Amino acid sequence: MLIAVDAAGGDHYPRNPVEGAIQAIEEDASVQILLVGPEQLIANELEGREYDKKRIHIHHAPEIIGMEESPASAVRNKQLSSIVQGIGAHKAGKCSAFVSAGNTGALLAASTFILGKLPGVIRPTIAAYYPTIKGFRLLVDAGANLEIKPEIAAQFAKMGSVFLSEILGIDTPKYGLLNVGEEEEKGTDTLKEIFKHLSTDPNFIGNVEGRDILFAKADVYLCDGLVGNISLKLGESFPDAIKLLIMKAVKEGKVTEEEAYTAQKVLGLALSPFNYELVGGIPFLGVNGVSIVGHGGSSALAIKNMIMSAKKCVEANLNEKIIASLN
Amino acid sequence: MLIAVDAAGGDHYPRNPVEGAIQAIEEDASVQILLVGPEQLIANELEGREYDKKRIHIHHAPEIIGMEESPASAVRNKQLSSIVQGIGAHKAGKCSAFVSAGNTGALLAASTFILGKLPGVIRPTIAAYYPTIKGFRLLVDAGANLEIKPEIAAQFAKMGSVFLSEILGIDTPKYGLLNVGEEEEKGTDTLKEIFKHLSTDPNFIGNVEGRDILFAKADVYLCDGLVGNISLKLGESFPDAIKLLIMKAVKEGKVTEEEAYTAQKVLGLALSPFNYELVGGIPFLGVNGVSIVGHGGSSALAIKNMIMSAKKCVEANLNEKIIASLN
Repeated sequence: MLIAVDAAGGDHYPRNPVEGAIQAIEEDASVQILLVGPEQLIANELEGREYDKKRIHIHHAPEIIGMEESPASAVRNKQLSSIVQGIGAHKAGKCSAFVSAGNTGALLAASTFILGKLPGVIRPTIAAYYPTIKGFRLLVDAGANLEIKPEIAAQFAKMGSVFLSEILGIDTPKYGLLNVGEEEEKGTDTLKEIFKHLSTDPNFIGNVEGRDILFAKADVYLCDGLVGNISLKLGESFPDAIKLLIMKAVKEGKVTEEEAYTAQKVLGLALSPFNYELVGGIPFLGVNGVSIVGHGGSSALAIKNMIMSAKKCVEANLNEKIIASLN
Repeated sequence: MLIAVDAAGGDHYPRNPVEGAIQAIEEDASVQILLVGPEQLIANELEGREYDKKRIHIHHAPEIIGMEESPASAVRNKQLSSIVQGIGAHKAGKCSAFVSAGNTGALLAASTFILGKLPGVIRPTIAAYYPTIKGFRLLVDAGANLEIKPEIAAQFAKMGSVFLSEILGIDTPKYGLLNVGEEEEKGTDTLKEIFKHLSTDPNFIGNVEGRDILFAKADVYLCDGLVGNISLKLGESFPDAIKLLIMKAVKEGKVTEEEAYTAQKVLGLALSPFNYELVGGIPFLGVNGVSIVGHGGSSALAIKNMIMSAKKCVEANLNEKIIASLN
């Protein structure tokens, strides 16, 4: 199992990708890594580190796509970038997957253009884990498709369900449509059409509301990428906002420093299952390959876990099962 | 200052509206209340209570609009309902405002149809307070307008800004457009058009993301009612979800019961400024009158504070200032 890692992506390259790669081969004896990026940069980073040299390889890719570059033009103009080269190596069958902490849009564009779509897929999607009181559930789409149609939403539901059952072990996932109310007649015309289109599907539980997400009323939350992206980032910002509000309460004399310390500790432990570093990642669903993108700030641990997620998707034959679910 | 209160709205009528009305006249000597609803029901609820009888009046309205009734047909078919009668009394100049914990859609419909729109207003809107680390900010629209256009968004920005500066005392509020990224070219065609339309406005700070809301990057968050409603309900559900996750951590032996108790107490105090009961309410902005709707589950205290908010809006001449801002 050779997994390619973008050694020139994210905010902390080449250090974190290289360290993550080494952690991965230490954790799993079946994994080998192809580090993709400027050869000398990678070699310098590897130098002096102890690792099994037979299991980490380098694919020279001298160009680097910045985090803020426009995705389409970056992919078009930087054919020698780590993203284009890594996805290209995956397309050529040289490796089983590609993981990156780099430019999400560029990775999605490269994955879609170079790997292509799975047979029958209308639009590949970015799904995101959403923390709930029952553990992670899935939000689809998280920002790749800002507008969706009934047939597209139906495919997102199926692809998301296959991912949840194969990778998280959730049996026959239920999907709900994020809307402003539960009743069938709620929402925009598009939402009403999606509801109608899904209404005969036994795993469709109908409309769900913003307040239902954290309580895992559904397993897959269907929405367009605008709603999904805003909901995702809003949710991610809660813990930090709570911390600041607790510090404010200390300043205002409402709680003691000791109480605040205990509260922060309890919050940290209660939310620890959702630590992004441990989460791994979700490949772009609907793409003909396994291509995972993570946070720009990914730590070495986060990258190691992305590699492990990629391996799991490959071993589970995720894409074959997605194809089967759509046909 | 006579303020009409829906005595047959919400989950706990007539008790909570009647108690809230009594609390209001006790708190503010300038306030009188017109309780609107079935006369006998109100009289029974008032019986045996101590209050200044000269300052609480009854407007008989025998019909009741249920919380789940379809708004348009309820308003059309129940002309003798507390909502239609209360708004009618306001329209006729018998009272300065109407507050209700009843059916939001019905109250919006009645307010729009009976009171009409302020001159120049394209669409009235439901704005919502959003808790942030700096205190409340405003989300517009929160569910009344599921799709918006540039001219409508621009009016929402202005109406929301007038409300924030007049009622919360926030100087020259800044508004941001909720989007998937900060760059001008991000988002749907509609969002790009709104951005362009607002771009010459000195108080427009550009696109903001889901992660910016809780940190009060903007004062007014502009969005369509779909994004707003989902973001609002997601945010409201966060404290309860955290409580459950803390209880789970106790069960799993990660934290002790004492630590969890302290954490819950700290969280309660840190979030106490956002207690909905103390918040009062926001009138439908753009309607030619002062009409405030609250949570269905509103307590007496919540209703008392809605009455106080209504009074504040009347005294501030909010609607005159909104008209001036639009022209």
